[in-house]
Amino acid sequence: MTGHAPPHKPPPKRRLAASARDRGENRAGILAAATAEFARHGLAGARVDRIAASAGTNKRMLYYYFGNKEALFTAVLEAAYADIRAAETRLSLLDVPPAEGIRRLIAFTWNYFIAHPQFLMLLNTENLYRGQHLRGRNEVRSLNSPLIATLSEILRRGRADGSFRAEPDALQLYISIAGLAYFYLSNNHTLSAIFARDLARPGARRERLAHMTELVVGYLRHGPE
Amino acid sequence: MTGHAPPHKPPPKRRLAASARDRGENRAGILAAATAEFARHGLAGARVDRIAASAGTNKRMLYYYFGNKEALFTAVLEAAYADIRAAETRLSLLDVPPAEGIRRLIAFTWNYFIAHPQFLMLLNTENLYRGQHLRGRNEVRSLNSPLIATLSEILRRGRADGSFRAEPDALQLYISIAGLAYFYLSNNHTLSAIFARDLARPGARRERLAHMTELVVGYLRHGPE
Repeated sequence: MTGHAPPHKPPPKRRLAASARDRGENRAGILAAATAEFARHGLAGARVDRIAASAGTNKRMLYYYFGNKEALFTAVLEAAYADIRAAETRLSLLDVPPAEGIRRLIAFTWNYFIAHPQFLMLLNTENLYRGQHLRGRNEVRSLNSPLIATLSEILRRGRADGSFRAEPDALQLYISIAGLAYFYLSNNHTLSAIFARDLARPGARRERLAHMTELVVGYLRHGPE
Repeated sequence: MTGHAPPHKPPPKRRLAASARDRGENRAGILAAATAEFARHGLAGARVDRIAASAGTNKRMLYYYFGNKEALFTAVLEAAYADIRAAETRLSLLDVPPAEGIRRLIAFTWNYFIAHPQFLMLLNTENLYRGQHLRGRNEVRSLNSPLIATLSEILRRGRADGSFRAEPDALQLYISIAGLAYFYLSNNHTLSAIFARDLARPGARRERLAHMTELVVGYLRHGPE
């Protein structure tokens, strides 16, 4: 089929002369379309021409902005991390008492994962590829390290004011909070089937959040054993 | 291509006259080969002829035992659950004090997931298919309900003897224990990349198990908040 495709036309002049704002909208539109496509079809199954059509552009513009499909996937992953980390920053976790900061982070993580199932699918795909698109990317490290720094500071304050007795490593604790939410959602179908309980109904989601919160905050307040 | 395939020959007579033991070995060999194939290629990508060749049999025998590819996948899932639940039973969790029973279950789950990456891949695949192969299977429910009954009994005993103050739902607690282990392993590549720490080295695994254990046992012993 590709042998019969017309040769690529250069992008129209008005595109190349587009304002910075137009370029930003173009890029954001392509990223949004690519996020949906990669989440749905994985990396191998995703098609660049479907992404271009969905974003109202063409493959040439897409390659102009992003280089190739793998680079576009990397950009999608980085944008997805930037989104969740930016939303966490808006929680102002250091403006509230330590235990309340932890409760907010747990509830936020839970609700964010529910509202962004595409984020979980993208992470699953990247783990199939053994993290190769993220490995060694300084941008993605500098996106994620402030979260761990904030969590470390919450833990330090909680120990200093006597509200926390446990002293976990901040990264371990973050992975635990994310894992308590992620596994329940990503494996909801198998868990519901093998235990014969509908774990996706709204009441079940409230129960899950309450359990995760009491598990983590109870441990932090009272100490390890 | 299939138009040129030779017509299926009936299975050789010695197969149809095979002893019960031979039949069991055949079936087990096909299940083992199918487990590896489905874990590696997913359901859509798995090829029945590769499974048959790997098991030293042919497609006709495979269909004789299992019916079709979807039914074989269902049998693989059920065998995988049967394996982990049988191994859990051998832990004798009710023969030790409640906190020790919880510690054993956490360590077992962690080490089992590390030793059986195929199990995690199979669950990921079945969740992509929205649990359709497990849903409504009474066999799989009767495999999994004894685990929750055992965990309920451990929690009841811990409250009765004063060693536990928390009173979580047993299913929520099991999902938490599994999730704390599962997410760390299934998302190891992305987590290692974004936080710039090698989370797969042996020392990191010991640290993770220690953290999960102190989180869960600390919470159970001291109560929710």
